Amino acid sequence: MPNAPLDRSPVALAQSLIRCPSVTPEEGGALTWLAGILEEAGFTVERPRFSEAGTPDIDNLYARIGTRAPYLLFAGHTDVVPPGDVARWGHGPFDGTVENGILYGRGAVDMKGGIACMLAAALDYLDVAGPDLPGSIGFLITGDEEGPAINGTVKLLEWARARGERFDHCLLGEPTNPDSLGDMIKIGRRGSLTGRLVVQGRQGHVAYPDLAENPIPGLLRLASALLAEPLDAGTRHFDASNLEFTTLDVGNEATNVIPAEARATFNVRFNETWTAETLGAEIRARLDRAAGRSVRYTLALLPSNSPAFLTEPDVFTELVAGAITTETGRRPLLSTTGGTSDARFIKDACPVIEFGLVGRTMHQTDECVPVADLHRLTAIYTRVLAAYFEAR
Amino acid sequence: MPNAPLDRSPVALAQSLIRCPSVTPEEGGALTWLAGILEEAGFTVERPRFSEAGTPDIDNLYARIGTRAPYLLFAGHTDVVPPGDVARWGHGPFDGTVENGILYGRGAVDMKGGIACMLAAALDYLDVAGPDLPGSIGFLITGDEEGPAINGTVKLLEWARARGERFDHCLLGEPTNPDSLGDMIKIGRRGSLTGRLVVQGRQGHVAYPDLAENPIPGLLRLASALLAEPLDAGTRHFDASNLEFTTLDVGNEATNVIPAEARATFNVRFNETWTAETLGAEIRARLDRAAGRSVRYTLALLPSNSPAFLTEPDVFTELVAGAITTETGRRPLLSTTGGTSDARFIKDACPVIEFGLVGRTMHQTDECVPVADLHRLTAIYTRVLAAYFEAR
Repeated sequence: MPNAPLDRSPVALAQSLIRCPSVTPEEGGALTWLAGILEEAGFTVERPRFSEAGTPDIDNLYARIGTRAPYLLFAGHTDVVPPGDVARWGHGPFDGTVENGILYGRGAVDMKGGIACMLAAALDYLDVAGPDLPGSIGFLITGDEEGPAINGTVKLLEWARARGERFDHCLLGEPTNPDSLGDMIKIGRRGSLTGRLVVQGRQGHVAYPDLAENPIPGLLRLASALLAEPLDAGTRHFDASNLEFTTLDVGNEATNVIPAEARATFNVRFNETWTAETLGAEIRARLDRAAGRSVRYTLALLPSNSPAFLTEPDVFTELVAGAITTETGRRPLLSTTGGTSDARFIKDACPVIEFGLVGRTMHQTDECVPVADLHRLTAIYTRVLAAYFEAR
Repeated sequence: MPNAPLDRSPVALAQSLIRCPSVTPEEGGALTWLAGILEEAGFTVERPRFSEAGTPDIDNLYARIGTRAPYLLFAGHTDVVPPGDVARWGHGPFDGTVENGILYGRGAVDMKGGIACMLAAALDYLDVAGPDLPGSIGFLITGDEEGPAINGTVKLLEWARARGERFDHCLLGEPTNPDSLGDMIKIGRRGSLTGRLVVQGRQGHVAYPDLAENPIPGLLRLASALLAEPLDAGTRHFDASNLEFTTLDVGNEATNVIPAEARATFNVRFNETWTAETLGAEIRARLDRAAGRSVRYTLALLPSNSPAFLTEPDVFTELVAGAITTETGRRPLLSTTGGTSDARFIKDACPVIEFGLVGRTMHQTDECVPVADLHRLTAIYTRVLAAYFEAR
């Protein structure tokens, strides 16, 4: 007896994915389910599993249909963050319940919903285009985006490159819209650099400050110096780079003791004006100027795998923006705001832009997506495929 | 059979006291021993024991000889700080060993040595003056100076006042000399005020600083404002008041999170320019000016029982300074430096000044005092008694 025919609606596909409890690092059946459908549709599917000492083994998926250029790659992840206290959810986080036109569940927008729309769009497009595809469509899906991101996209891209895979463009389906579908395409991301600052002093009694050396005024001076002047004024596509102190710590409970040491940590989200190296040098220069000869400090910059990058808007960006405008009536902003994503790795393989669902409920209790958004995003992706291969 | 005659040398008396293990709150036999000797010498001795919920009961001692004015009160404490790791001591902390002219032991200078000298001086003077004392000599000795100081001098003074005791002058025998006997009389002490500052913000992701409110720049601004201008320029007898930050605490371990709150604690050692109230008001005014409308903060000032006080130098101070100069050939500085002492309580009962041994080894391993210093301090105290009662 043949299988029941697949319900190709993006809602049904998203429900199937949500019902796989794929909290990082668990595969949870999500990639296996996805592999089955892609194979059925004619894709060649690979399931590389990557390992590294000290981190869990991770399942990944790579699928391709077609052998020619141009090659459009859809990218994403099936792993999700934990649901937290399940009792606080109005709908089970792994049930995929639809109520009043809203689909609830962990990953509804970040980003099982996005993957469901890509999948539905590819199946729709392949129905229309027939077997003689004028290019290639691929899926590069990891199970390690929400975790340490060590056995995920980075290794998957290395693995694909070693096999000779060459992509022309990538569309990453992360939730990019702040409020409504059509708000925003991400064409780059800021880099991230973390520094730990320690100011040394000499412990002593508060009644005898001349016999001690309080490190706190020095820390106040250095920290204030890092905040005093903007790092840059921003660029055409990027906001100004921004430094935030995330903690100050001395941990001295004795109110009559001057402490020996004071510590601070800061994180910079930086634009294409900087690399981690040039930014680190600028920070050290500012600290040295503020410290003079009177403040003794050390600065440790944590290894950064988050450079700033920009995919300069081109015909592909215009194609995606056009599809969004046609389906939503709105012109998306081309933005580089927000946190980091796996696009920072993909940009070394091919031009990559990001467009997906509305991110407002991501990582929250009762994460959800309007069913209408799933249909509209599927229509956008389908238009992108049609337009991408039309000229060929 | 009568008791063996008492060895009245201050060295023997100090050894006897050191051999009583009177680590706060233990009486350790020290006050009982002292009471026995004072009674033998003709003093009326009382042993009030004070209690308060949440603190250990404490033994104290009050002794008086004579019924007339003028009344000179010796004050001090027999309790000592713990010895720490006894294995690090070259001589047992409670052995009272003399080696090469140095007496070793916990309390040698802080302040069993000082009490031994007061006692030796009183016994010597009474021998000379005979039974018809032209005034009164008293001892007000607590066992709770190194501890919470709740069941000690404060309650002992209240108790004495309720009995109608009226003192004319007090000499407190704390170690006041930084380097050599004769360096320094303390004629007052700075006050101490501790404040806890909390700046409120709003938690968020470092990549979206506009959606959060980092409390750390506000804390840097407020803390810097408190350090920017001196509180005062000092007075004739006092150094400038001094504010030290003792800790900064945020405790945020996530380098991608802007914290909700930042905390700091400071301690001010202040001179007679201020009371705790006027100083607190000045600090609040400075914080309000720095905060403007943009920084939300709270300030909690801890209850302070350490006001600044000065015993204005007068004929009694001159009498003590003269005795010191005669015995040491040096003119002592009249100082208000250093930490607090029980003089801050006694000053409400009568004029109080402080002179004792050299403090360099106090609270340290192998605390010690030269035997010669014990003899010289006894001679100074004896001269003070003789001069004090001479004019009567």
